[in-house]
Amino acid sequence: MKHILRLLSRTPFLRRNPKRNFHHERLLLANRVLSQQSEKLINSMDHETEKLLAPLRVFVKEQGDIVKKLKEEKAPDIDIQKAVAELKHRKKTLEDRELELGAKDNIDRTKMEDLLKQKFFFDQSFSIYGGVNGLYDFGPMGCAVKANLLQTWRNFFVLEEQMLEVDCSMLTPEPVLVASGHVERFQDYMVKDMKTGDCYRADHLIEATLEKMLADKKIGAEKKKEINDLMPLIDGMSKEDMGKTIVKYNMKSPLTNNDLSEPIEFNLMFSTAIGPTGHIKGFLRPETAQGIFVNFKRLLNFNQGKLPFAAAQIGNAFRNEISPRAGLLRVREFTMAEIEHFCDPIKKDHPKFKSVADLEVVLYSACNQMDGKSPQVWKLGEAVKQKLIANETLGYFMGRIQLFMIKCGIDKRKLRFRQHMSNEMAHYACDCWDAECKTTYGWVECVGCADRSCYDLNQHSKATGVRLVAEKRLQEPKEVDVVECTSNKGTLGKVFKKDAKAIGEYLAGVTAADCDRIEQEMASTGESQIQVGEQTFTLKPDMVAVKRYKKKVHVEEFVPSVIEPSFGIGRVMYSMFEHNFKIRDGDEQRSFFSLPAIIAPYKCSVLPLSNKDSFVPFVKELSHTLTQNDVSHRVDDSSGSIGKRYARTDAIAIPYGVTIDFDTLNALTTATLRERDSMKQIRAPLEEIPLIVKSLSTGQRTWEDVLNNYPLFEQQETTKDK
Amino acid sequence: MKHILRLLSRTPFLRRNPKRNFHHERLLLANRVLSQQSEKLINSMDHETEKLLAPLRVFVKEQGDIVKKLKEEKAPDIDIQKAVAELKHRKKTLEDRELELGAKDNIDRTKMEDLLKQKFFFDQSFSIYGGVNGLYDFGPMGCAVKANLLQTWRNFFVLEEQMLEVDCSMLTPEPVLVASGHVERFQDYMVKDMKTGDCYRADHLIEATLEKMLADKKIGAEKKKEINDLMPLIDGMSKEDMGKTIVKYNMKSPLTNNDLSEPIEFNLMFSTAIGPTGHIKGFLRPETAQGIFVNFKRLLNFNQGKLPFAAAQIGNAFRNEISPRAGLLRVREFTMAEIEHFCDPIKKDHPKFKSVADLEVVLYSACNQMDGKSPQVWKLGEAVKQKLIANETLGYFMGRIQLFMIKCGIDKRKLRFRQHMSNEMAHYACDCWDAECKTTYGWVECVGCADRSCYDLNQHSKATGVRLVAEKRLQEPKEVDVVECTSNKGTLGKVFKKDAKAIGEYLAGVTAADCDRIEQEMASTGESQIQVGEQTFTLKPDMVAVKRYKKKVHVEEFVPSVIEPSFGIGRVMYSMFEHNFKIRDGDEQRSFFSLPAIIAPYKCSVLPLSNKDSFVPFVKELSHTLTQNDVSHRVDDSSGSIGKRYARTDAIAIPYGVTIDFDTLNALTTATLRERDSMKQIRAPLEEIPLIVKSLSTGQRTWEDVLNNYPLFEQQETTKDK
Repeated sequence: MKHILRLLSRTPFLRRNPKRNFHHERLLLANRVLSQQSEKLINSMDHETEKLLAPLRVFVKEQGDIVKKLKEEKAPDIDIQKAVAELKHRKKTLEDRELELGAKDNIDRTKMEDLLKQKFFFDQSFSIYGGVNGLYDFGPMGCAVKANLLQTWRNFFVLEEQMLEVDCSMLTPEPVLVASGHVERFQDYMVKDMKTGDCYRADHLIEATLEKMLADKKIGAEKKKEINDLMPLIDGMSKEDMGKTIVKYNMKSPLTNNDLSEPIEFNLMFSTAIGPTGHIKGFLRPETAQGIFVNFKRLLNFNQGKLPFAAAQIGNAFRNEISPRAGLLRVREFTMAEIEHFCDPIKKDHPKFKSVADLEVVLYSACNQMDGKSPQVWKLGEAVKQKLIANETLGYFMGRIQLFMIKCGIDKRKLRFRQHMSNEMAHYACDCWDAECKTTYGWVECVGCADRSCYDLNQHSKATGVRLVAEKRLQEPKEVDVVECTSNKGTLGKVFKKDAKAIGEYLAGVTAADCDRIEQEMASTGESQIQVGEQTFTLKPDMVAVKRYKKKVHVEEFVPSVIEPSFGIGRVMYSMFEHNFKIRDGDEQRSFFSLPAIIAPYKCSVLPLSNKDSFVPFVKELSHTLTQNDVSHRVDDSSGSIGKRYARTDAIAIPYGVTIDFDTLNALTTATLRERDSMKQIRAPLEEIPLIVKSLSTGQRTWEDVLNNYPLFEQQETTKDK
Repeated sequence: MKHILRLLSRTPFLRRNPKRNFHHERLLLANRVLSQQSEKLINSMDHETEKLLAPLRVFVKEQGDIVKKLKEEKAPDIDIQKAVAELKHRKKTLEDRELELGAKDNIDRTKMEDLLKQKFFFDQSFSIYGGVNGLYDFGPMGCAVKANLLQTWRNFFVLEEQMLEVDCSMLTPEPVLVASGHVERFQDYMVKDMKTGDCYRADHLIEATLEKMLADKKIGAEKKKEINDLMPLIDGMSKEDMGKTIVKYNMKSPLTNNDLSEPIEFNLMFSTAIGPTGHIKGFLRPETAQGIFVNFKRLLNFNQGKLPFAAAQIGNAFRNEISPRAGLLRVREFTMAEIEHFCDPIKKDHPKFKSVADLEVVLYSACNQMDGKSPQVWKLGEAVKQKLIANETLGYFMGRIQLFMIKCGIDKRKLRFRQHMSNEMAHYACDCWDAECKTTYGWVECVGCADRSCYDLNQHSKATGVRLVAEKRLQEPKEVDVVECTSNKGTLGKVFKKDAKAIGEYLAGVTAADCDRIEQEMASTGESQIQVGEQTFTLKPDMVAVKRYKKKVHVEEFVPSVIEPSFGIGRVMYSMFEHNFKIRDGDEQRSFFSLPAIIAPYKCSVLPLSNKDSFVPFVKELSHTLTQNDVSHRVDDSSGSIGKRYARTDAIAIPYGVTIDFDTLNALTTATLRERDSMKQIRAPLEEIPLIVKSLSTGQRTWEDVLNNYPLFEQQETTKDK
């Protein structure tokens, strides 16, 4: 069940079983790459370590081969599932070992979270009311970072690629989400404390209980081996398996030790009633993509009927997680940015592919995962040529995703693309790669990039009867057989009055098979019945005629394929924070974020060295000119030492700082400009500074270039100075 | 009840009874202004018309005076309410007549809506599923317009004023909205069709039924007079009044003629359950403001404890309207942009007020409304000086709102500020002005600007026990009496173990009255009981001591006042579309939007005159350079005539168009640049064009200036050319 669930869910973000990210995949740290570039790119295992891992790799591969063979032989599902569970178990053992032996990251998460809280990047919502799990508010700094990230995304994808951006309703009526599969399948299992009614995610609870048992000294080695064998199977457990496991190990409610209920299916969507009657059941959308699919016809029309085109949407989505955790990584309300690229299913090349063909990406292919191997560095062009990546369009987006992530400050060494293995990929998808970022929570899926074939448009077509198709010109016109009903409007009108119109419309749209049936019935019984809406009507031969003829057609209709890059903005932000969290050498107290200027909440700080009145006009003038040049900035004229104020602006990631000092007041009117990461300063005429900062913060100029063109200003910087 | 409801609801957008906007205030068209400027500014009534209106104005004033007198005399509420109802009735009669006699607008709304739909600016959500009332999707053009509007707002308010922007959760737990008053009071009355269960807003239904009766020839003059007298009273009807009216006139369900239920209170918030247990009842926020209030402490802290500061939020809010209507004006999901400016209640001056003091605004004061007069033009400085506008900060924001609206393309002649009359203002607000835009639906409230005193912070303080206050330095330190409990941590720890900490914290925060009680109980019984959370503890004399002493304090705490400008983005957009909808002289088919460049979805179109291969490189190069310069643009290389393509780009409000023609291909490499509104064209070197367009679209350069510097290019423009 669980397994099926994952297979059918639609985007990577929808994929149930997040454990894969937070527990399972945390362990996939080993990034040894086989090609030569890899040595430079990834913090790889050394030779000694690799020797220790070799037997485990073989062990994974053996089982991977068995799975492949069973699939080739079309063995019974149950056998394949068992073999896959064993494969996962072996992968986990390998990964555990890799993690143990691999290079450790030195990010102090607690310290980082303190800084994020203290500077109000984000914090729990409604804290003064006790807070709600899984809901976060972004403060001024987080909000600016988020707005900058979204603006960068919009420029990078929507504007540069001329995508059609839409902004659709979050409230969504039930039938839309029935068609998309969410009502039936977007669920987790939970268990309830039989006395308090508190709920727990069944898989989390089982895992936590088993882990506790493993740590329990009173439990013997044999029992522990059994538990160890069971651990990797939790992922694939059915509702019944979970229930049995809970009973077998006599699991209790963690806080109260009360009995637990059977596992219960729980849909993760927030439901509500639209309108006062309560008749229109609705949900808060669990993703933004459906809004694009239901607008496909309008978008195609807007694009003058031409394919391919991409639509994009930035917006919030909602999931009623049973137990939210891991900060911004698993929340109940979050921002997504999704792209749906519609194209001809038999034409998935991309005109701009060659612009990314030479780009190097780290690919963790399904094959490598099956074979116990590490991710590998590939050139995108080569990966598409070798059919490792299914097509150019998918490859093009993967390249663009990587370029975007790096532009936003994601550490290239902590970014990889992991391919879905065939047993975790939606059944209708041809290929799917997740851009994963390495964090202290393990490898976190931040962007999904999937070729979803024609699934979504087909589903909505079926549900609504509206044909969601595009047309293409045939190279050669072709002759087709047409069978159609032509109705006699006069007769229909006389007999059926107000229903005549609906009947006429129905007849105009009937299939060839229906035409045959009507014709046959007329011939044998002299009448034929049709069902229009909820009514049945009896037709006579004078009302309808079946015509057959050949027609030359120049176009044909087809259901477009969809390629979908889907960004979890909160996850990208969280990874961005971790990858840019720094502590000054030799000063544990001075932590800061080295975010790139385009992402930083303010581009520049303005710091008067003294709060004498004579400084005020210069601060005002500079602030005004910066505003005119669209350079967001923050004036800090508090009385702290300049070192303390630098530390404060570093903490909120401001990349550049202008200090108005006593030399500003003299005839030369110069000020100093400091760069956050290097802490180097130059001195420049005050009037030139706004444009220098603007060009630096838009990336038109580098700091090195500025350093080369202005005199260095040397000053000891410490937070302890007075 | 209804009346109270309006008094208590919090923002202008919250104000129930939207009829005031769509029916009642539609009639307030007369903009005659008494000052001299007014003649230029507003399409005023002529002398003859004014003669006809004079007796009606006197009639309103008479009643306004009666209301004032009753209030002065503190007459019984019921008498005041009756007098106010009569006042409204007279205002309506005056306004009806003004409308009848006044200048008519010539906006063809149907045509405009067709264009908005056809070019997919916005359209009903989920149409292929039959659609849901009150939900709209923005297509590529609407989405770009909205994004530009929000970016302009962010630059104009957040960046220029250094506001603290936040981005808070939409899901909101119930206690927050109990404190804000929304759970109790944010409601409408509805009636149900007793057979089908269909719901109608009670006031709408009563009004529609009475209007139908007025049009019925079979109903006699006397009855009609009675109905006419009743009409203006609908606004103020209680639940019981509505029930009686429905019975008295034997009103039935409009579609089925079935019986109707009694009026039922209906809360307008969408409710849902957060978390799997269903224990946390939540709502989708009905406004964004509460997110700012609950974060007040963090924001004050971020601002280093200093006041005044303003926080801002852009985001969606939700209202489950009983019967949404009027397109974007009354919807169930909408975007707001709200500012909460926190300041010292006794210090509401504003340092930048003088920058707007000379700005002329049209004020429709409460007094003028009571006196039957028209709105008047005021200089803001004068209006604040005369105390017509309560304080500088409120006045400053009104000025900024006007400047922003005009920047976004709102027609200055269709913008006014209407003051809330004392009987429609929230009881805690000191002053409130709505920026209203004139549309074909009447005067529509687009931005509210209210001085909300300390109401919101007080409410959340009361509900949570968290002190939401700021501190200010006293001019002179003052001596205060301090009474406090000091606890003996050692003893507490020994006796109460893990509860000791909570008890200690409780004792540190008790009031002077509690100290007295504890001291007295200890003295008389040798022990004292305290309630901490849900537990009761008994304290002995060795655990706690009450201390009394005098202390010199340098700061005092106070609850800040809030001044709130609140923008309904959908309403501003709708007004913007109406104010900029144009039809070309002599060509009814060519309708377009003259949106300002900063708002227009694309800044520029690129049109190759021919689709010969030789044009392609120029189009590509130009498109590339425009992208590099952040100029959003659309290439239209379809085969339509150039006139048709101009018409198409006009329809989506693109302000500038570059045509690559045969002169681009020769040695001079020039192209033409066309301005949308004037349709004038110049010819300029291709390489200069991107920067010309950039400077035009950011407002750094005017079209007149471009016209003066480049040769005019003359061409007959028609959609009929080949």
